[in-house]
Amino acid sequence: MDVPQMKSKLKYYGAETLRGIHAFVPEKEPKHYLYDLILDYPNRGGKGFRPGLCIASCKAHGGKLHQAKFTAVTLEMLHNAFLIHDDVEDESAFRRNKPTMHNAHSRAIAINVGDMMNALSLYPLWRNKELLGDKLTQRIFLEVYHLITESAEGQALELGWRQDNQCHLTEKDYLRMILKKTCWYTCIQPIRMGALIGSNGVINPDSFNRLGYFMGAAFQIQDDILNLIGEESAYGKEIGGDIIEGKRTLMLIDLLSKCSSAEHHFIKDYLGTPMLGRDMADAKKILELMHHYKSIDHAKQTSQYLAGAALKEFYTHFSHLKDSEDKAFIETIIMYMINRDY
Amino acid sequence: MDVPQMKSKLKYYGAETLRGIHAFVPEKEPKHYLYDLILDYPNRGGKGFRPGLCIASCKAHGGKLHQAKFTAVTLEMLHNAFLIHDDVEDESAFRRNKPTMHNAHSRAIAINVGDMMNALSLYPLWRNKELLGDKLTQRIFLEVYHLITESAEGQALELGWRQDNQCHLTEKDYLRMILKKTCWYTCIQPIRMGALIGSNGVINPDSFNRLGYFMGAAFQIQDDILNLIGEESAYGKEIGGDIIEGKRTLMLIDLLSKCSSAEHHFIKDYLGTPMLGRDMADAKKILELMHHYKSIDHAKQTSQYLAGAALKEFYTHFSHLKDSEDKAFIETIIMYMINRDY
Repeated sequence: MDVPQMKSKLKYYGAETLRGIHAFVPEKEPKHYLYDLILDYPNRGGKGFRPGLCIASCKAHGGKLHQAKFTAVTLEMLHNAFLIHDDVEDESAFRRNKPTMHNAHSRAIAINVGDMMNALSLYPLWRNKELLGDKLTQRIFLEVYHLITESAEGQALELGWRQDNQCHLTEKDYLRMILKKTCWYTCIQPIRMGALIGSNGVINPDSFNRLGYFMGAAFQIQDDILNLIGEESAYGKEIGGDIIEGKRTLMLIDLLSKCSSAEHHFIKDYLGTPMLGRDMADAKKILELMHHYKSIDHAKQTSQYLAGAALKEFYTHFSHLKDSEDKAFIETIIMYMINRDY
Repeated sequence: MDVPQMKSKLKYYGAETLRGIHAFVPEKEPKHYLYDLILDYPNRGGKGFRPGLCIASCKAHGGKLHQAKFTAVTLEMLHNAFLIHDDVEDESAFRRNKPTMHNAHSRAIAINVGDMMNALSLYPLWRNKELLGDKLTQRIFLEVYHLITESAEGQALELGWRQDNQCHLTEKDYLRMILKKTCWYTCIQPIRMGALIGSNGVINPDSFNRLGYFMGAAFQIQDDILNLIGEESAYGKEIGGDIIEGKRTLMLIDLLSKCSSAEHHFIKDYLGTPMLGRDMADAKKILELMHHYKSIDHAKQTSQYLAGAALKEFYTHFSHLKDSEDKAFIETIIMYMINRDY
């Protein structure tokens, strides 16, 4: 499958999921500061990786789209709820080319909308009973419970590092953090849940953990690279926003491990300054240092190694399945993840 | 039952619930910015109304404490998660005589801890299967789902009013808001769920809706009165914090409906000023106006009417139950709710 075909399929699965989200958001008051806002981030149009992976994994394992639809809706609602709270936590200014929810409304409203969205995301899981029976419904519930707790643990690590102004992290620390913060909910559990649904609970979902980890890590690193060097219009976040936010990316961790002692001191001071007091010129200097010490090249290379490992895992664990469009879709998406420019 | 006996029972149910919370919080990393903090608010010692009501309602309907224990844990965890996010949303400084979580740590950490606590609160509901069987477990899950969504709707109303600087609200608006924000999760659903568990699903839980509404409304109004006139050491929040926060209490709504046009203008200006720019002297003047226009007396009277209506509902819907300590406990707690001084 080529990339345009993959994108078109991703778009289709995303549109089906968005329709599902609309169906699960009640048509009632209060609209103005609650229910309308729940649809705001989903309507801006995300990439839809998580529902796409879940549905494709279901179909590649012999299931049908409609069997995975409620689970896909839950994944995408949880993802958007995470984004709303993450934007408040990181004090981010833009999301998908528009002001973040707390900037467009208020922090208080944004926190509450995220809370409601987390709550609403449970209901499609409940509805799974109609499609999957009690036993599989319960397994999927526990999968979702796990992905939520892993993400919050990963978020706690990342926030804690910033709070303590940690400047001596290793690549291993970073990979452990994104395994928790990103990989479980973005790749591992979408693929696991799709496979469980498609195989009617027969498959051992643990066989996908390495695939999802490599894939998710490649994805996150690529995402962080695009934040640094992508074009604003294509990417939808402020350029270099991660440097302004003091986010512990692989590039920053790599730079801190390679730079001179004076530069280390300068970066640590910068990161120790409250966000609003940070100087754009200093942020730019850090970006230049990342180029100078080839930290961005290093991250690109790491992302490509990880994607290679993901492909190997894919061939190991998907090769016994009969060829299908959805199997090819997952293969293409793995390669795309490290080459995408938005 | 007299008040000291009731308090001692409430304390016992609260201690059992706190032990349950500790058992559900995993002993793992990251402790520093996550799992340790999840225990922070519960360990400060809340009043434990919600688990107390749920357990007592279960026992008064013929059940045993251990049957309601997981549900009580969920209620108390959700309550504490609400408090953490509510404190961020209201920019509150103190909670239970200590700095609020976002003040002691950071906003970002507090939001994430609340999210994790919301997630963890689902697991005891899952464990209900061991105690209650599948069918009742599923009913309790839907009860909890409902109380979470009602609370978020109520919170959206209250935050929206502040955001829009609403100064023409009625008592009816206020009661509708606290029905959603407070009554469902504090009274209606703890009593409903206890009765469902105690009666093994036989009772019609809707018969407790009016009781829980009157009780919860009396409780919330009394809570807001104590915020204005209570003593800091007894109450554990900053005095008059609600006025500083611009919270639409019954007293404020009543004052705005009675005061002169010039005073209305002054209050509206004050409430339209960002919180950090509000003058303590102005807050004090608003408190004086509340005394002058007898808005606090009016609120006290309303709270007492509501508690009376709650007692009448209690006699209607609990009189057919055989007398028990827990039945008497609920009766005493209703009367205590409007007379408590902390």
